[in-house]
Amino acid sequence: MDFNSKLQKYAELAVKTGVNIQPGQTLLVRTPIECAEYVRCVVEEAYKAGAKNVHVEWSDEKCSLIKYLNAPDEAFDEFPRWISDQYLDIAKEGGAFLTIYAQDPDLLKDVDPKRIAAYQKVSGQALKEWRGYTLTNKCRWSIVSIPTVAWATKIFPDVSEQEAMDKLWDLIFKCSRVTDDPIQAWKEHNENLKEKTDFLNSKKFKTLKYKSKITDLVVEMPEGHIWESGSERDVNGIEFNPNMPTEEIFCLPHKYGVNGTLASTKPLVYGGNVINDFVLKFEKGRIVDFSAKEGEETLRHLIETDEGSHYLGEIALVPYSSPISDTNTVFYNTLYDENASCHFAIGSAYSSCIENGNDIAAEDFDKYGINDSLTHVDFMVGSSDLDIVGITHDGEEIQIFKDGNWAF
Amino acid sequence: MDFNSKLQKYAELAVKTGVNIQPGQTLLVRTPIECAEYVRCVVEEAYKAGAKNVHVEWSDEKCSLIKYLNAPDEAFDEFPRWISDQYLDIAKEGGAFLTIYAQDPDLLKDVDPKRIAAYQKVSGQALKEWRGYTLTNKCRWSIVSIPTVAWATKIFPDVSEQEAMDKLWDLIFKCSRVTDDPIQAWKEHNENLKEKTDFLNSKKFKTLKYKSKITDLVVEMPEGHIWESGSERDVNGIEFNPNMPTEEIFCLPHKYGVNGTLASTKPLVYGGNVINDFVLKFEKGRIVDFSAKEGEETLRHLIETDEGSHYLGEIALVPYSSPISDTNTVFYNTLYDENASCHFAIGSAYSSCIENGNDIAAEDFDKYGINDSLTHVDFMVGSSDLDIVGITHDGEEIQIFKDGNWAF
Repeated sequence: MDFNSKLQKYAELAVKTGVNIQPGQTLLVRTPIECAEYVRCVVEEAYKAGAKNVHVEWSDEKCSLIKYLNAPDEAFDEFPRWISDQYLDIAKEGGAFLTIYAQDPDLLKDVDPKRIAAYQKVSGQALKEWRGYTLTNKCRWSIVSIPTVAWATKIFPDVSEQEAMDKLWDLIFKCSRVTDDPIQAWKEHNENLKEKTDFLNSKKFKTLKYKSKITDLVVEMPEGHIWESGSERDVNGIEFNPNMPTEEIFCLPHKYGVNGTLASTKPLVYGGNVINDFVLKFEKGRIVDFSAKEGEETLRHLIETDEGSHYLGEIALVPYSSPISDTNTVFYNTLYDENASCHFAIGSAYSSCIENGNDIAAEDFDKYGINDSLTHVDFMVGSSDLDIVGITHDGEEIQIFKDGNWAF
Repeated sequence: MDFNSKLQKYAELAVKTGVNIQPGQTLLVRTPIECAEYVRCVVEEAYKAGAKNVHVEWSDEKCSLIKYLNAPDEAFDEFPRWISDQYLDIAKEGGAFLTIYAQDPDLLKDVDPKRIAAYQKVSGQALKEWRGYTLTNKCRWSIVSIPTVAWATKIFPDVSEQEAMDKLWDLIFKCSRVTDDPIQAWKEHNENLKEKTDFLNSKKFKTLKYKSKITDLVVEMPEGHIWESGSERDVNGIEFNPNMPTEEIFCLPHKYGVNGTLASTKPLVYGGNVINDFVLKFEKGRIVDFSAKEGEETLRHLIETDEGSHYLGEIALVPYSSPISDTNTVFYNTLYDENASCHFAIGSAYSSCIENGNDIAAEDFDKYGINDSLTHVDFMVGSSDLDIVGITHDGEEIQIFKDGNWAF
């Protein structure tokens, strides 16, 4: 298959299997300007699938960097109302959201972290209502990634720009199952994930114990928790795949039930900076201590976003041997790295991961052990020596992971 | 000077001489994604000049075309509220607007003109309140052009894409006075234009008579009319240049005082289509008949936008010999072609071209002979045989143009 055919198939996949556009629906595509070629395929596929209207919100990270380096402080304390209105208007009228995620991992490395933290906070506040729609599947959304020169050359620094782009395209097509019939490949993949998910749900675990050379953590699971994976259903029952690729089976930990030490195993790119080799210490769910060999200041700003960012909102299981991790590539891109590794997220929980969770009012979240925050940032903890044991309410111990891979 | 230095100077010119950014001000840049390199220079220069915040609204005409060809009819009956809110919010808080105008002149040639007309109308209605700010200089705004491949190859179809781009860049730098000191060059240019403008204003003409082989038109000028040119001042007295380049001295005709026949002399690109060789017949200001050798259907939709688009809103004098027309190039771009030729505009008038005009309520426009419309579209009528005679209220006849050029 030539490149253009793959690109078109990848666009069709995002439209049909990703956000699953329905006739008459509106789609918002959020994308860097460098991904225009792919976006044009997406727009075409969305109209072919019957979309009423496709809006594209373009961005340019070079302009963002110019702003971070040159604007006055006040610029980072405001978030334009029209952007949050755009998202909310589209969400309220039943629209879908496709995000093209393609960051330069080192973009903001020379920027004052205070500026980045201020803007993360103000944008988190401004977009909180809209994120409520995605967190509770009140709208369908999906994230895919496209190579950009800055990102590709970060992964492959020793080859030419063109070669780095080609290599990254190959990996993305491979990990995203862009085959002759990607839609069928994803159907089978979703079914495979569901089998393991059903097993986990059947056990109704009380706690999960994580153990490796660098991690020693006990995670209490809330009552009525639901493991999810692959495709999800929106509140109207329409299937969609929020992440492409996806290899994870995820749930929420009890906000106040996490204790012990948790160490990262892959770099985390947050706010245009790399955080690497970090350790978090938990007591009753709260991060009470942390350190990082690289990017500690950025990590501090992340944890101090608000009260909720001192707690975890997601627990996710990914085997050490999986299509993405088998590429032996550090992607410096959470969408890819999180699907190559067991991970957690700092910040808000998906309330769809608890029985009738989408009907629980935010003020009652605490009672159910659901964390709430302006932020939600995944970080990777999987390793080849990670063991995970689940303990049921009857005290039965079940080996879930052995040496980094599924034990059952 | 190398290309990058010129680009940076051109950006500085747009920021300082164009919109004249003041410390603490917000700037919105509206631009095609292809112009990113220039836009990044603009963003940098705007922050250097003290801007508080620079927002960029990117667009992609290839996505627009995909929409025009594939979306259902309903998509052209709606205009997103968040876009008009964006403009209005920025205008109300005193922000400035820089538009990068770089259309593919043939973009929509295969599109049903009804779709284009429907969308022009709905966007005209949605943006009417914001356009009120620019038409009355309640905010500062400027338009510049940047080469794109589609535009450059339309002008220079017989050379390679790269050569066409290079040639168009050269013309744009030349016509926009991008010299060692463009800001000083523009100061002098504005002063030169003011001399002629002052002469025209001193005469307080009652009528202007246009005569060439193909045009025979009498234009009544409203009482208290003011000719303007080059730089203008916003309502706070801050200077700006709305068009770069600019060679025109313009005013408004009396809405009901235009009689005779007016023929175009350059192609007009409207809504992604070319209209060429067209003739308009006026009675008491109203277009009562029209024909076009090319794009007549597009012309019909333009004229039928609303009642006001049956009348003229602008009269502008540009000598046949001027820096832009001396390039002997048809630009298929109104910003350039209108500044190479005497022209008029169909649609709304700039009420700043009448004494205390910005204080006149829209419902009183008719009384003063000010036209109002959802649209404002310039079209070119200058030629080497055009004579224009002005007649004062005392009956004095003054030759304004002789054989296409200034007669005084």
